[in-house]
Amino acid sequence: MTAPRIALLGTGLMGAPMTRRLLGAGFAVTVWNRTRSKAEPLAADGAAVADAAADAVRGADVVITMLENGPIVGEVLFGAAGAAAAMTPGAVVLDMSSIPPPTAREHALRLSVLGLRHVDAPVSGGTRGAAEGTLAIMAGGAEETIAELAPVFAPLGRALRVGPSGSGQLAKLANQAIVGITIGAVSEALLLAASGGADPAAVREAIRGGFAESRILAEHGQRMIERDFLPGGQVRVHVKDLDTALAAASDGGVTLPLLSAVRDLFVALRDDGGAAYDHSALLIQLERMSGKRLGPGPDRLPG
Amino acid sequence: MTAPRIALLGTGLMGAPMTRRLLGAGFAVTVWNRTRSKAEPLAADGAAVADAAADAVRGADVVITMLENGPIVGEVLFGAAGAAAAMTPGAVVLDMSSIPPPTAREHALRLSVLGLRHVDAPVSGGTRGAAEGTLAIMAGGAEETIAELAPVFAPLGRALRVGPSGSGQLAKLANQAIVGITIGAVSEALLLAASGGADPAAVREAIRGGFAESRILAEHGQRMIERDFLPGGQVRVHVKDLDTALAAASDGGVTLPLLSAVRDLFVALRDDGGAAYDHSALLIQLERMSGKRLGPGPDRLPG
Repeated sequence: MTAPRIALLGTGLMGAPMTRRLLGAGFAVTVWNRTRSKAEPLAADGAAVADAAADAVRGADVVITMLENGPIVGEVLFGAAGAAAAMTPGAVVLDMSSIPPPTAREHALRLSVLGLRHVDAPVSGGTRGAAEGTLAIMAGGAEETIAELAPVFAPLGRALRVGPSGSGQLAKLANQAIVGITIGAVSEALLLAASGGADPAAVREAIRGGFAESRILAEHGQRMIERDFLPGGQVRVHVKDLDTALAAASDGGVTLPLLSAVRDLFVALRDDGGAAYDHSALLIQLERMSGKRLGPGPDRLPG
Repeated sequence: MTAPRIALLGTGLMGAPMTRRLLGAGFAVTVWNRTRSKAEPLAADGAAVADAAADAVRGADVVITMLENGPIVGEVLFGAAGAAAAMTPGAVVLDMSSIPPPTAREHALRLSVLGLRHVDAPVSGGTRGAAEGTLAIMAGGAEETIAELAPVFAPLGRALRVGPSGSGQLAKLANQAIVGITIGAVSEALLLAASGGADPAAVREAIRGGFAESRILAEHGQRMIERDFLPGGQVRVHVKDLDTALAAASDGGVTLPLLSAVRDLFVALRDDGGAAYDHSALLIQLERMSGKRLGPGPDRLPG
């Protein structure tokens, strides 16, 4: 296609910086957000701001959705003021929200009935990745559609096709499973070292040279040492992701004992006042269970 | 001290390349190994080869032990042909073996009675790290002794003091806990993705850009995709380490549910024929439990 016209629905913490990256790459972008005031600042960057989702998508070649959850994506696409009905046949819904794989597959099917295409392409990398165009983008859907979207992905990050419809969402769940379990691994290991009299900060530093090294040990491990539990990634949101992952595991017929165990730890932390804590605060849950602390010093907690 | 005279006891897969690194740095090194034939090739590199441990350590400033387990270290130091009695008062036993923290503390105490010093400094990084001098060295003991050993550590890798006697061993257990649990995390995540129809090789590649990235995802994840389970790090050895870690957790009064869960998975794999497999074969255990495979293709297995 020639430079595609883009609509972006959902200009929140992720959608807004992604819009700026697309505008910076020269795309024409029309944005819409349920709370219009969150979309309006993007006009100064060159975006057209629409009053309704249906207005934003009219004439667009690619409609990016970056919304909170599956029901909201469904409502925006297929609800009363539904966007799908206003789209041009042949256009693509590029859903970059994180939603359950079966919901993504259902959206793909409903859109195909309308002559529309669908790619599920959730991301990892957070608001910083969105601002810097360094997101990890996990794309599920038809090969030719994903190939066609390459110029749209380019300013946002690194996109890889991981399989058919729904696979992007599965990859995101795999990502969240690894992140959650690795946070648990680092929490338990540092607590083990401290319980025997070792210095957890020095242990973290010493083992970074070996096979234990990870982004989680580097970043979340440092948060644990500093006891800085301001989010970041909220416990509440991670529980939702892990529950979705366990539902997908059940659908797929696989038994995942570590995922189940870490989910239960996160739920206990959430239900004991930790819903808004950064997910590295899983350490606090393990400390409570053991009656031991990694070290002295106050916790930085939200709210 | 002036350039210390070094004795190295245990010239196995790790001790031999470490000896070569020390000789290359200009140290005088006398080596001993229970099976003498394993020590003899080091003579060509400039090492003196002793017939008995007691002969090797006589006159040495630093006695490095790199042996299989705690009982063997105890036997070599304090047994019938014990080395400790032949050492010069003030000399240092630098135990780089991986043994339980209480055993390391006991050795330190018994050596102090003889006027000898002790540092526990196990390593991570494997035979390649030993050959290249890039080991992660986790040192427990007196600050001034560890500082004094800096020239000895330099050709071997990066050494950090992590606390008092026994802390090096605790750090190694923390390392092994993270490695084991992260192998579990990557196994479960790839199996989850595959069970829903995504391509696990593409998922692994896609998520490497985000918070899920680790040495384990990079190296052991690739082994899982290729189904290459030749060791590497053996399941049998990792079970031993995880059991030692759980004993240390019990001593320290901390509850580590993920470590317990992954230990049970490794034990099941060991007891079902997997003792000599690489630890990345934890995937096979999860596949058996679920009756699903990550992908087709034969397994590369030892023996």
